[in-house]
Amino acid sequence: MSTSIPQTMQRIVLAARPQGAPKATDFRLESIDMPEPGPGEFLVKTLWLSLDPYMRGRMDDSKSYAASIAIDAPMEGGCVGEVIASNHPKFAVGDFVEDRLGWQSHAISKGQGVRKLDPSIAPLSTAVGVLGMPGITAYVGLNTHGRPKSGETLVVGAATGAVGSLVGQLAKAQGLRVVGVAGGAEKCTYAVEQLGFDACLDHRAAEDASALRSQLAQACPDGVDIYFENVGGKTLEAVLPLMNVHGRIPVCGMIGWYNAGALGGSISSGPNIMPKVWRTILVNRLSVQGFIITDHYDQFPNFLKEVSALIAQGKVVYRESIAEGLESAPQAFMKLLEGGNFGKQLVAVSPDPTR
Amino acid sequence: MSTSIPQTMQRIVLAARPQGAPKATDFRLESIDMPEPGPGEFLVKTLWLSLDPYMRGRMDDSKSYAASIAIDAPMEGGCVGEVIASNHPKFAVGDFVEDRLGWQSHAISKGQGVRKLDPSIAPLSTAVGVLGMPGITAYVGLNTHGRPKSGETLVVGAATGAVGSLVGQLAKAQGLRVVGVAGGAEKCTYAVEQLGFDACLDHRAAEDASALRSQLAQACPDGVDIYFENVGGKTLEAVLPLMNVHGRIPVCGMIGWYNAGALGGSISSGPNIMPKVWRTILVNRLSVQGFIITDHYDQFPNFLKEVSALIAQGKVVYRESIAEGLESAPQAFMKLLEGGNFGKQLVAVSPDPTR
Repeated sequence: MSTSIPQTMQRIVLAARPQGAPKATDFRLESIDMPEPGPGEFLVKTLWLSLDPYMRGRMDDSKSYAASIAIDAPMEGGCVGEVIASNHPKFAVGDFVEDRLGWQSHAISKGQGVRKLDPSIAPLSTAVGVLGMPGITAYVGLNTHGRPKSGETLVVGAATGAVGSLVGQLAKAQGLRVVGVAGGAEKCTYAVEQLGFDACLDHRAAEDASALRSQLAQACPDGVDIYFENVGGKTLEAVLPLMNVHGRIPVCGMIGWYNAGALGGSISSGPNIMPKVWRTILVNRLSVQGFIITDHYDQFPNFLKEVSALIAQGKVVYRESIAEGLESAPQAFMKLLEGGNFGKQLVAVSPDPTR
Repeated sequence: MSTSIPQTMQRIVLAARPQGAPKATDFRLESIDMPEPGPGEFLVKTLWLSLDPYMRGRMDDSKSYAASIAIDAPMEGGCVGEVIASNHPKFAVGDFVEDRLGWQSHAISKGQGVRKLDPSIAPLSTAVGVLGMPGITAYVGLNTHGRPKSGETLVVGAATGAVGSLVGQLAKAQGLRVVGVAGGAEKCTYAVEQLGFDACLDHRAAEDASALRSQLAQACPDGVDIYFENVGGKTLEAVLPLMNVHGRIPVCGMIGWYNAGALGGSISSGPNIMPKVWRTILVNRLSVQGFIITDHYDQFPNFLKEVSALIAQGKVVYRESIAEGLESAPQAFMKLLEGGNFGKQLVAVSPDPTR
């Protein structure tokens, strides 16, 4: 199923560091000569590029949990690809792999940290979604840091996103009450009807944090034991006062603040809610635990086994939002940061031959 | 050593809820008839009243980790007292006890949660200080939530206070580098020369959080692994950017924000530092753990044994700041909230016959 190798490849580089929300001119599509794999290397054609909120942090020139992307360097990202040329003993032409190829149509790999995929087990695209980085983020954040107990109540933002949707479904499978927060009525309906959440609130319909808090209070009559934090902003402000004693807040993201420069270290406007937050942590003896999934890849085999089984049993469903063509990646990414995606955001870079 | 029982007793009640910093008119000294112990009760004469920052929270009319003090009710507080009349089978006249008698010269007790004290083991006043609630707060916060490892760096605010001074000394005994933050040069000198801290910075001499951060960065060349949070405010802002990956922040108080109404739930002025704080928690995978010492009294026997031994060995020293007479309590408390105390703040309510 391999095709002849074209003479050029395309990639999207960081043209400028965004001020606030990224715009089209912060990215540049380039054509370059197709690289050739050296000894011990192989050439991969990208099928699926994953777009994830953390990428916004990489565009800023400040310390994050990984280095910044340099200006004129390709945007980074996890991908599913097909090996189309190989000098590597363990990767053959036709192999499907999950690798960090970046926003590129093709890339050279040495095989380090590359995972081979079997398309008969699950659709290839899930390797960067529900069975990939977002999936294990949900799994570790919920189980290791959330410490869920049957009968407790969990709140998760970005409820229909790649991470939030799995957090909620895994929590439901463990007997928790699950309340999502999402942007728009359509997503909220999906969270309840398809994902099985007990309730889902539309933060866009709530005037402010206080209005959202009133709705959450109604949806969480026994308070909130776990707030899975992936959004920050208004949702955080609304949930905090509802936290129960000994509640847990795993923190894996804060998309609501990324464009405000939060990962760049600048300060957002509005009143200083910090004393209030610190007070809630103290009075309610909360555990707030930041985590980065790359610290926890030792749990990958267990995660894969458990979540694959739940998918097979129909207890976990997932939804993909697909942008067509590498050139659509910047627009799709900007939309993602505004919550415009509905489900795991992918870019179909080349046709998936197994689909 | 008991004396005849007077016909009246004195107490200080909450006259009004403070707006911001408490003022003298928020308290009222009253004389009332001396109560008589009923069956199974005993009458205690207060020797030492402990003044602690948490009391500020009790003065506000909002949910804290304990109920508010009602208007016209006596201020609450831990005390050391002497039993002067008893109908209780286990407490005899002449016994010394630690009890929550409140800001009162005398009180009736039923013996619940009352600890008998042996003045030959340690001075009685330590039962509300280094060997009492502040002491176990330091012990549990450091060991259970701070999880110290030899060679790590710890920062603690209010470094010469009842909690901070023991946190630092216990950490030193476990081989950590200890850097304190305190108000004024005299306290800083004491922290280094008497408490054995590696360094202590004067937050009053630092123009702002940024200036304090520069000094802390110099004093903590390997970053900060544990920030024992008992002050909030400028110190928190200065320390956060210095936290190492997998750092721990036990949160037991935030005196720097109490008068700003933080425990009353209002919002302090200044820019919203919350996105920055949340970002640091995420990027550096911090554990932030609020705790209330009453959840951890099962550790009291171990605490008492270990810290008593360290005091006997001269590895832990403590300092008391004594205000004379119950009537001086409001003034001493207001001063405490401004950092005007130097060491554990006590009120000598009646002469300690063992002193």
